Amino acid sequence: MNYPVIVDVTLREGIADPEGATIERALPALGFTGVTHVRAGKSFRLDIDASDESAALEKATALAERLLSNPVIENAAARIEMSS
Amino acid sequence: MNYPVIVDVTLREGIADPEGATIERALPALGFTGVTHVRAGKSFRLDIDASDESAALEKATALAERLLSNPVIENAAARIEMSS
Repeated sequence: MNYPVIVDVTLREGIADPEGATIERALPALGFTGVTHVRAGKSFRLDIDASDESAALEKATALAERLLSNPVIENAAARIEMSS
Repeated sequence: MNYPVIVDVTLREGIADPEGATIERALPALGFTGVTHVRAGKSFRLDIDASDESAALEKATALAERLLSNPVIENAAARIEMSS
């Protein structure tokens, strides 16, 4: 069966995030105040063929660490996509 | 009060996604089979100062459309981050 999986890749705590910092600096000029701690990340949506949800998540976690993220500076987390 | 908000930016249906296609092509060589429909996106985490959750989400949606996404080719969705 195919499971829809989302992999969220975020920078680890303490790793500099120039993209997030630039967004945060730009917001007041656009009229948005009170927005802090902006962090930029990536997300991937994939269909994974597996026998059950936990096997799909295991495969997603393995490929996220091999291909989708840099484990030195990034965290990767896999979750099943909620159907809306 | 500060609300932790996640903004997910994904490519609209039908918009070409060369990053996702490249990932999908690379997976079999790494030993991952049965992975299809790979789509790459972006995510942003922000703290938003607002009176309540719906005001925070409204502000997040407005700034996502102004600054974080290109509405011509991308969808942006804001949600409150679940505390884990």
